[in-house]
Amino acid sequence: MDYDARSLKLHREHRGKLEIRSKVPLDSREDLSVAYTPGVAEPCRRIAEDASLSRELTIRGNTVAVVSDGSAVLGLGDIGPEAAMPVMEGKAILFKEFAGIDALPICTSAHSADELVAFVSALAPSVAGVNLEDIAAPKCFEVEDRLQDLGIPVFHDDQHGTAVVLLAALLNAARVIGKAPAELSVVINGAGAAGVAIAKLLRCVDMDPAVCVPVRDVVVCDSKGAVHAGRDDLNPVKRALLAHTNRENRSGGLSDVVRGADVFIGVSVAGALSQDAVRSMAPDPIILAMANPDPEIHPDEAMAAGAAIVGTGRSDFPNQVNNVLAFPGIFRGALDARATSISAAMKLAAAHALAGSVPEPSETEVLPSPLDRTIAGKVAAAVAAAFAADTPGSAG
Amino acid sequence: MDYDARSLKLHREHRGKLEIRSKVPLDSREDLSVAYTPGVAEPCRRIAEDASLSRELTIRGNTVAVVSDGSAVLGLGDIGPEAAMPVMEGKAILFKEFAGIDALPICTSAHSADELVAFVSALAPSVAGVNLEDIAAPKCFEVEDRLQDLGIPVFHDDQHGTAVVLLAALLNAARVIGKAPAELSVVINGAGAAGVAIAKLLRCVDMDPAVCVPVRDVVVCDSKGAVHAGRDDLNPVKRALLAHTNRENRSGGLSDVVRGADVFIGVSVAGALSQDAVRSMAPDPIILAMANPDPEIHPDEAMAAGAAIVGTGRSDFPNQVNNVLAFPGIFRGALDARATSISAAMKLAAAHALAGSVPEPSETEVLPSPLDRTIAGKVAAAVAAAFAADTPGSAG
Repeated sequence: MDYDARSLKLHREHRGKLEIRSKVPLDSREDLSVAYTPGVAEPCRRIAEDASLSRELTIRGNTVAVVSDGSAVLGLGDIGPEAAMPVMEGKAILFKEFAGIDALPICTSAHSADELVAFVSALAPSVAGVNLEDIAAPKCFEVEDRLQDLGIPVFHDDQHGTAVVLLAALLNAARVIGKAPAELSVVINGAGAAGVAIAKLLRCVDMDPAVCVPVRDVVVCDSKGAVHAGRDDLNPVKRALLAHTNRENRSGGLSDVVRGADVFIGVSVAGALSQDAVRSMAPDPIILAMANPDPEIHPDEAMAAGAAIVGTGRSDFPNQVNNVLAFPGIFRGALDARATSISAAMKLAAAHALAGSVPEPSETEVLPSPLDRTIAGKVAAAVAAAFAADTPGSAG
Repeated sequence: MDYDARSLKLHREHRGKLEIRSKVPLDSREDLSVAYTPGVAEPCRRIAEDASLSRELTIRGNTVAVVSDGSAVLGLGDIGPEAAMPVMEGKAILFKEFAGIDALPICTSAHSADELVAFVSALAPSVAGVNLEDIAAPKCFEVEDRLQDLGIPVFHDDQHGTAVVLLAALLNAARVIGKAPAELSVVINGAGAAGVAIAKLLRCVDMDPAVCVPVRDVVVCDSKGAVHAGRDDLNPVKRALLAHTNRENRSGGLSDVVRGADVFIGVSVAGALSQDAVRSMAPDPIILAMANPDPEIHPDEAMAAGAAIVGTGRSDFPNQVNNVLAFPGIFRGALDARATSISAAMKLAAAHALAGSVPEPSETEVLPSPLDRTIAGKVAAAVAAAFAADTPGSAG
């Protein structure tokens, strides 16, 4: 039985993948009086006096919301909030299994940027962080930007989770083939949520140059080809990329700009990269082809065309680029540090911790296994330390 | 150690009272591929084709949200959403323990009626029902009314849960002392969420006269005395009560209108009812004094003044009126029946099922124990049957 059929069976048998359970006993009148009325009034009073106690006396301190409007789910598009729930439940159980975080899966009919901002803002008192998920570009950029002053971390995983894992893979891949990251020229195919975030992270946007070494150049392509200054069809997010990418202002299609590049990063669609295109790249090219479920080029074809290292989103080939390597640890670190946002420096620290968690990177192991339960703790420690370093007076 | 201190200790040690856990294994790459990507795309696709499948393939069908803005928490008033969370968590664990329902505790900074309606509407795709909680009157009435067409039950427990348990207690108390409900004259002290809902349920508002026998008369008092037609300070909700209550249009304070009454129902403040007032009532008066944590009159004082039956919210005296006897079963029944709202007839059915669950009511047992795990199932069955009776073509 294939994954589709098995997944359908699993979801139907269990009616979803998670449950909400009591951590305290409720067997006697005494139990009820302590956990509920009248005893419950006392923690309420304490929090009313000092709202920060909500993190100690309620689930809030260990709880995040995974919020989607279902407008860009996997490769399925705008399928709506009800249909997005299986993905949000999946994220929620990964949060718990890998980082001990309680996550509320929330699919909302809020759809415009204004509605989403209002909805997430209104939800904030219940949680210590918000993982935005599967929200279409460019709306996702505006929504996340406008929520940065909410007082809790708001993090769009399709952007930053992907970027963090990708950077970790790239750091190790470059090391394996003996190229310095600062000398890499990179082509990113896809200018949606992930492509934009990857470009910014690789180019150290919003980061202290003392801690972040940018790759030499990044050219981003969308469905119309390279994002360059001569185009009059760029949305504001793509236009803003021009300050940090495509230093030679190259134009043309993917096959034009990929010529001579060291790295191809695909966050686009199956089959977007040909073997000829791989052959046109610099020697020992790195191919990270993350379209799901079918990558921009099949790993075997990429290797046959001369790729030195290939990573995909697939679990049945080496070098699986999977967000589960990042988001549980990033949020764990942010919650532990009581961070109010997740800065670029914290994302960078997560990527370096993730890369560093592979003792001896090789062509077939630039990332740890997504099942490795030790990763989230390492990422969390690095993220919390990066927050502390940036925050005078923080206890870390 | 008193309940306050024990409750504070419990909440601090556990950092809240509930957790979110996976119901499915996540130990192998296979598990990940089935529960998450790529397998998860298949249930998403199925729900995108038929949104009703969200109740079968996700947690939605067994999930309710417990939503509060923290504007009227216990007797503590408008303490805000963060401070309301211990109560919402308490409700959530009671939902699970008594009815097997997964409940998301949500405290929101949405505060105006418009904001609350927008927030709950936006949350709806994630849940199969909404339990509104601890929202101040009269805002609570407007918010609940405006959410009745959402397609899922929206039920303000402070109104209807309280009214259902109260009616059950009253039915059994009347039976014990040999008075017919239709002949009772009732005074309700308190015209907030609970008082208004109790008055409407006792007077069969919005109900088929074939199934509901109203009590003879209800007089509602607020802090200024009886709600009567000559007052010019009534909000629209209190004014609407005049169509169903105070048939003799009596004016005056509580001590005036309680004279000769058969029943006193207190949903107000400690000490509101004097022994002299009890002595002025009809013979064998029924006193249901539900102010928390201290009732309108101490049970011993009420009995000494001639009360036949006394109920309070307290667990340390007989006849504890506790909403946990109602809301888990009411929602269980509504979810099982896939009801789109909880009608007056369903509330009435819940009250009768609850009253009928006491085999031999007595002065000290007009309600079952709040710990009785058999109650929710009985209430649920009655609620689902009442929905089916009202819904042509429903499978029940």
